[in-house]
Amino acid sequence: MSAKPLTDLSQLCIHTITTKPWNIETAAHNFSAAGVKGITVWRDALEGRNIRQTGQLLRDQGLSIVSLCRGGFFANQDKTRRRTALDDNRKAIEEAAELGTSMIVLVCGSDPAQSLDDSRKQIQDGIAAIVPAAVAAGIKLAIEPLHPMYADTRSAINTLSQANAMASALNSPSVGVAVDVYHLWWDPHLEPEIKLCSGKGHLFAFHICDWNVPTQDLLLDRGLMGEGCIPVKKIRSWVEAAGFNGFYEVEIFSNKLWKDDQSQFLKKIIKAYQENS
Amino acid sequence: MSAKPLTDLSQLCIHTITTKPWNIETAAHNFSAAGVKGITVWRDALEGRNIRQTGQLLRDQGLSIVSLCRGGFFANQDKTRRRTALDDNRKAIEEAAELGTSMIVLVCGSDPAQSLDDSRKQIQDGIAAIVPAAVAAGIKLAIEPLHPMYADTRSAINTLSQANAMASALNSPSVGVAVDVYHLWWDPHLEPEIKLCSGKGHLFAFHICDWNVPTQDLLLDRGLMGEGCIPVKKIRSWVEAAGFNGFYEVEIFSNKLWKDDQSQFLKKIIKAYQENS
Repeated sequence: MSAKPLTDLSQLCIHTITTKPWNIETAAHNFSAAGVKGITVWRDALEGRNIRQTGQLLRDQGLSIVSLCRGGFFANQDKTRRRTALDDNRKAIEEAAELGTSMIVLVCGSDPAQSLDDSRKQIQDGIAAIVPAAVAAGIKLAIEPLHPMYADTRSAINTLSQANAMASALNSPSVGVAVDVYHLWWDPHLEPEIKLCSGKGHLFAFHICDWNVPTQDLLLDRGLMGEGCIPVKKIRSWVEAAGFNGFYEVEIFSNKLWKDDQSQFLKKIIKAYQENS
Repeated sequence: MSAKPLTDLSQLCIHTITTKPWNIETAAHNFSAAGVKGITVWRDALEGRNIRQTGQLLRDQGLSIVSLCRGGFFANQDKTRRRTALDDNRKAIEEAAELGTSMIVLVCGSDPAQSLDDSRKQIQDGIAAIVPAAVAAGIKLAIEPLHPMYADTRSAINTLSQANAMASALNSPSVGVAVDVYHLWWDPHLEPEIKLCSGKGHLFAFHICDWNVPTQDLLLDRGLMGEGCIPVKKIRSWVEAAGFNGFYEVEIFSNKLWKDDQSQFLKKIIKAYQENS
């Protein structure tokens, strides 16, 4: 099954960090003017602002607020820091509710001073601890498996299979998974795991970008769809075949692209979305 | 089960690329003088040399020649280039025989211009094509699964599970697997896959180093054992419990460590081997 043509922008969401040089007000205005329908808000974009009013401003521009990025970082050898992380996640849930989004993306964390098994256990315990607050606030939590090159400090959840297993173990309608092509494109089990994820009702989000060849930086050298080697269209076809009909979220961190004129970059994003996603 | 103490250097092998600033003659002399028992030879170290004589020189220093690095790069959209790769692998088999080693490590390749599935199929076909030459020469071929961050151009085989499946499919006593902690440490299935690999008689080689936190470069920032977050001792205990009793090969690419005085670095390698491996 091939991916359906993206004839309009009704499913296009852009993360605020993708156009990092713009503040959230500028991003919202320009996204909206370009016909983009969704925005995912990174917490740094909300700094110094009234969150409720900012949420209203985004909605006034006709934007759906797809999610808040990011909660997580549950894994830490130090118990006090694990507690601090839980507090921060509860704060994120409050912020999400104030903003008026229904989802938080979780970058789960990993502590290089302990085993991945220990980090994984702490992640599961951490999510379990915040589920009641999430349920009470009507906020969904999306576990985002991160590329294995981030297993040292960013996430000990590195495959969709692990994220699926954890979401199933946590067994709450508020807990699911965010699939990001950048993190998972290499996985030989990606297609069946996407199907499994969606079948359990856990496929909450779908993030797109590309893997540059060569990649110059472990964190800040993502490419625009079509610039690299990820079969974005093919993976989108799997996500669609599995029943996903949410937003396709463009999440790019790129020192190179952030240096470009962001209005031109936004045009390129839309073109890459329509032609290569 | 914990790893047995490494009370001597009888299982220590060092790759020529680890002390890249030294030519192979200097490396062999210094490894031998320090009590190192094994050497793995990278093909660039043989340039401009009589391979047979170089092999003899290594043996004269009391060194076991553990393997030749590297064959592979079978995947290519272009049929002519795939044929060229086969020729190069047959040449590597001849070189290995001349050198007097019994094993070649395969970095299998990946072509970003085609799907990973296509690359994987070409890899399997490529290895199958060179098996007769390997068998005739008495050379074993070790498929090395590479970290997923190398899936774009270096290898479409990115987990031990994939390497195990391919070795089983190829079904030749000459084809097995090289386990490198750098590539595989993050894998939640690593321990059972090591057991499976060894149980099938496919565990041919074990490479060690460490994952620096943070890692500055995708290729040339590997750490010495103990400097990073890989549980090298724990993984070695899995390999030993699975029955492996070959060499522990120190394979480090590091712009930083190559700048150091290599005699001091060799001392550090031996200390890291005894204390953190």
